Amino acid sequence: MTTTSTTALRRPPLPFTKMHGLGNDFLVLDATRQPVALSPEDIRALADRHFGVGFDQLLVVTPGPRADVDFGYRIFNADGSEVEQCGNGARCFARFVHDQGLTDQRRIRVQTCAGTIVLHITDTGHVQVDMGMPRFLPQEIPFSAPAPALRYPVAVGDEMVQLAVVNMGNPHAVLRVADVDSAPVATLGPQLESHPRFPARVNVGFMQVLAPDRIRLRVYERGTGETLACGTGACAAVVAGQRLGWLGQHVTVLLPGGPLQIDWPGEGQHVHMQGPATRVYDGLWHWPEAAPAV
Amino acid sequence: MTTTSTTALRRPPLPFTKMHGLGNDFLVLDATRQPVALSPEDIRALADRHFGVGFDQLLVVTPGPRADVDFGYRIFNADGSEVEQCGNGARCFARFVHDQGLTDQRRIRVQTCAGTIVLHITDTGHVQVDMGMPRFLPQEIPFSAPAPALRYPVAVGDEMVQLAVVNMGNPHAVLRVADVDSAPVATLGPQLESHPRFPARVNVGFMQVLAPDRIRLRVYERGTGETLACGTGACAAVVAGQRLGWLGQHVTVLLPGGPLQIDWPGEGQHVHMQGPATRVYDGLWHWPEAAPAV
Repeated sequence: MTTTSTTALRRPPLPFTKMHGLGNDFLVLDATRQPVALSPEDIRALADRHFGVGFDQLLVVTPGPRADVDFGYRIFNADGSEVEQCGNGARCFARFVHDQGLTDQRRIRVQTCAGTIVLHITDTGHVQVDMGMPRFLPQEIPFSAPAPALRYPVAVGDEMVQLAVVNMGNPHAVLRVADVDSAPVATLGPQLESHPRFPARVNVGFMQVLAPDRIRLRVYERGTGETLACGTGACAAVVAGQRLGWLGQHVTVLLPGGPLQIDWPGEGQHVHMQGPATRVYDGLWHWPEAAPAV
Repeated sequence: MTTTSTTALRRPPLPFTKMHGLGNDFLVLDATRQPVALSPEDIRALADRHFGVGFDQLLVVTPGPRADVDFGYRIFNADGSEVEQCGNGARCFARFVHDQGLTDQRRIRVQTCAGTIVLHITDTGHVQVDMGMPRFLPQEIPFSAPAPALRYPVAVGDEMVQLAVVNMGNPHAVLRVADVDSAPVATLGPQLESHPRFPARVNVGFMQVLAPDRIRLRVYERGTGETLACGTGACAAVVAGQRLGWLGQHVTVLLPGGPLQIDWPGEGQHVHMQGPATRVYDGLWHWPEAAPAV
């Protein structure tokens, strides 16, 4: 089917695993046993959902760079650019190294672009991630306000909305709504995302409180639009709701892609997120042939 | 990670191959060596591009039901419904049985819902498909017209457009435009698709003639919208253009997903389509676990 010279130029097939965390989907590559070298063009080819494999993000698992960490990983967007952190990706990483037998530990220390994080695989196979310390000061968001407050009135067109603001490694604004199904995510989301009071733009969460331990949440993500399951958005909503007296310490967050469990003991403490990660299939990618002339 | 009872209930992993024909993508299953039983719910789970594998159509390759055919196949939409025919799927089928070593023949006879078809694998690895005989009579389209003609004026709102009509197993309307990039595919496409003069609705092709042997084409597909590469649409455009004196017998059709070669010797003859089919990856699907409680 191909000439000898074409065959000689072809790269060997690439083994991969496809996973998702509440519908946020990842192509996972194991670079612990052999190096993986991909150009941004390769990543874009793999990311195409019709001509390639398709994914939201690519996760490359690497050996630990130092003795005190077990692994490293890097995450890339579908356009080939590298991203710092992703809660859904961290869960998929932990399940991947465990299910592939790369470690038999339940507590996994990993080096990421955003620093060392510790992941824990629970008895139910879920993964718990330490999401770090929330920050609330306006300059830490960043958000333009004369003084710190639990909520801020913000003008959007002729309307005034009440926002809590939280930095979870990335900036979040949280609104409480009566019903997430009818919340104006598609209109108010982009208006707030690029609102002048958020100089680095902002992720916008629309939270419906069902009970002190249960909320529904839709998130308009900065630069992306509405997503199925934003982990940092779930943390931001729970932290904001707890500070405002609406929520307790342990909260189930029902996202469009499924549920996450968020725990926050309170001011000065880290937020922990727990949720599922699912292996969908294992694959062997064949690099495209040069197209023969028609 | 899972309890013994859960493990006992899980179905064995399902081997599959992902392919595309000019970006029209297929999950291909080999049911020649072992039976494949999928419910519509299974197909929808596999079809989800975030939670599953993702595809436009599922292609199940089966043993030939009679001595005079080599194979059979069935094609299903992502919603689990069965479809009759698909030119891009036929090319992927031929490459699949050849590349997997299920046959060493270059000429493959296959039984489909739409009858027996013959596929030929060329020296360049492309696949040639006999697309059958075009039909032009208004009642064969079906199209409402007082008498047969090469083109028909059709009123759309305040405008009058000139349409050729062709049945290639499914109904097609073909318009010639000066430039496909600026053609009103998104507006005129749906208006014509559901025009009262096409009682079974219609696929709408917008053709730009570059030379007698080369056209550009965009197709608004009935019930789907604009697609990357409609094989029957390419045949319809070439046949219509040839009857109107614009095109010769051998024409390269440049679709958004890539090129197809269409050949039609003229009235009373079959149309042949030739184009690529690409294996993207081989996979092993793991059936979803029952989600543990959060």
